[in-house]
Amino acid sequence: MTLPKTVTLIEVGPRDGLQNEKNIIPTDIKIKFIEALKQANINEMELTSFVSPKWVPQMKDADEIIKACLEPGKRHFVLAPNQKGVERFYAAGCDHIAVFVGVSTTFNKKNINKTTEESMAELAPLIRDLKARGKFVRACISTAFYCPYEGKVEKEAAVDLCGRFAELGVDELSVADTIGMANPKDVYALFSRLKESLPENILLTGHFHNTRGTALANIYACLEAGVDRFDTSAGGLGGCPFAPGASGNVATEDVLFMLNEMEIETGIDMEKLLEAVDLIRPHITRSLDSKIYGLRMAGNHT
Amino acid sequence: MTLPKTVTLIEVGPRDGLQNEKNIIPTDIKIKFIEALKQANINEMELTSFVSPKWVPQMKDADEIIKACLEPGKRHFVLAPNQKGVERFYAAGCDHIAVFVGVSTTFNKKNINKTTEESMAELAPLIRDLKARGKFVRACISTAFYCPYEGKVEKEAAVDLCGRFAELGVDELSVADTIGMANPKDVYALFSRLKESLPENILLTGHFHNTRGTALANIYACLEAGVDRFDTSAGGLGGCPFAPGASGNVATEDVLFMLNEMEIETGIDMEKLLEAVDLIRPHITRSLDSKIYGLRMAGNHT
Repeated sequence: MTLPKTVTLIEVGPRDGLQNEKNIIPTDIKIKFIEALKQANINEMELTSFVSPKWVPQMKDADEIIKACLEPGKRHFVLAPNQKGVERFYAAGCDHIAVFVGVSTTFNKKNINKTTEESMAELAPLIRDLKARGKFVRACISTAFYCPYEGKVEKEAAVDLCGRFAELGVDELSVADTIGMANPKDVYALFSRLKESLPENILLTGHFHNTRGTALANIYACLEAGVDRFDTSAGGLGGCPFAPGASGNVATEDVLFMLNEMEIETGIDMEKLLEAVDLIRPHITRSLDSKIYGLRMAGNHT
Repeated sequence: MTLPKTVTLIEVGPRDGLQNEKNIIPTDIKIKFIEALKQANINEMELTSFVSPKWVPQMKDADEIIKACLEPGKRHFVLAPNQKGVERFYAAGCDHIAVFVGVSTTFNKKNINKTTEESMAELAPLIRDLKARGKFVRACISTAFYCPYEGKVEKEAAVDLCGRFAELGVDELSVADTIGMANPKDVYALFSRLKESLPENILLTGHFHNTRGTALANIYACLEAGVDRFDTSAGGLGGCPFAPGASGNVATEDVLFMLNEMEIETGIDMEKLLEAVDLIRPHITRSLDSKIYGLRMAGNHT
């Protein structure tokens, strides 16, 4: 069993982590948070998203965030759900986009009022155009294991959808256990299958929620399947509107702890990462789901 | 990669889980808790311990618990740390004993004021006598990965100590990540090594704390190493006096969720297990570290 020697953590706190936070966080705090994450040596990040400010008021300062934080040459992703978002993405001079679609059509419909096929029909020409303009396209595949409405998702349905994105020429596939129901056996099976079936030049990323405590087990199973990229969220920011009581994305610092202990390199500075969490924590209304940060708060600096 | 098809969870909540609880819980509540765990079809359990009531007042009702709950023919363990405890064990007519020792001698010294060698010198004749009388002996090996005082523990030190217990004829070795610092790579390495080196008739059990969120990852790594027994604690009961802010033993229901999802049989009834947690929760002063129970409290019954 050989695990990857280095792993990249893609920080999704500023976008995925904050988008469901009810308290509108001042833009300067968000910028300080992002800068602190950069100081921790986090080089890939979802910065913000071009979504309707009516639907996601937290992201209404997307242009300001980009102006202050986007560094050319770094993979600083901005999410855009549709044509309008992509137009704003071009206008802002961004280079790395994140698009998303759910394997489960019911989930996709409830989330953005389109079936999975309708989303694909809209995204396909957008992705071709983005690629023609030399942009980096990250496709986020949600409900790859479980749907809160349809239940267990067939592995081959996730594989097929990823394959269609591969044909469109995307650069990265981020495959998500959106409601935190996946188990390491299924995770190993799906990611091994994707490693086999996808072209080697496509980056494959695991995205896990710790809703039922299985996120680190699922990440370990991914590592065994050769996956070396994971979406994580500083402080475990991010809730899940589809599961009452659910915690959010797996905490960057908890993943970092496990990787450090396994001597897998990430380049990330734990202490500076925790300082970034210190900056954002007072503005978050829910309690953070982070073991390492919680221990630090209790005075344990192991 | 073949995982075990069935797994046994040894419930340690009534003993390991409660021993550090400051609030002295009424004996009848403990008995109801144990009965509820039995109703959930949990067949192996640490019931109580014969320790000094001066040191662990929570366990002063050991004889009453045994009288009310011990079922002959079931693996109902009672812990005894020394000769005096073993005498009480015989007098109470018990058949399944748990003894313990730390790989780290500093930990053992701080815990029971004996070096590891002094503990072994005391335990060896006791174990020989227990085996001569046909008793089942479970040896709990603490700090098998990390010591809060000495740091990382050498794998071979844990293997050697387990080997010495094997030579004494113990029936089970429960190998513990006492402070919740282990990572799945080291867990796989140690348990694979133990599977190779120990006689096949010795039951090998993993005991994990979720202090840093890695317990389920470590259990998954154990499953890959062929381990099919785990100590778990209903509601995640049990703190760790050596780590401020630390959570306790991994919650039985969280492990059960993961095993259920992987279609690994345990025979345990989730709903009845959660009802057992309902019984004990009002008497516990710390907040429970259990994802599944927490979701249920929030109204999510997935």
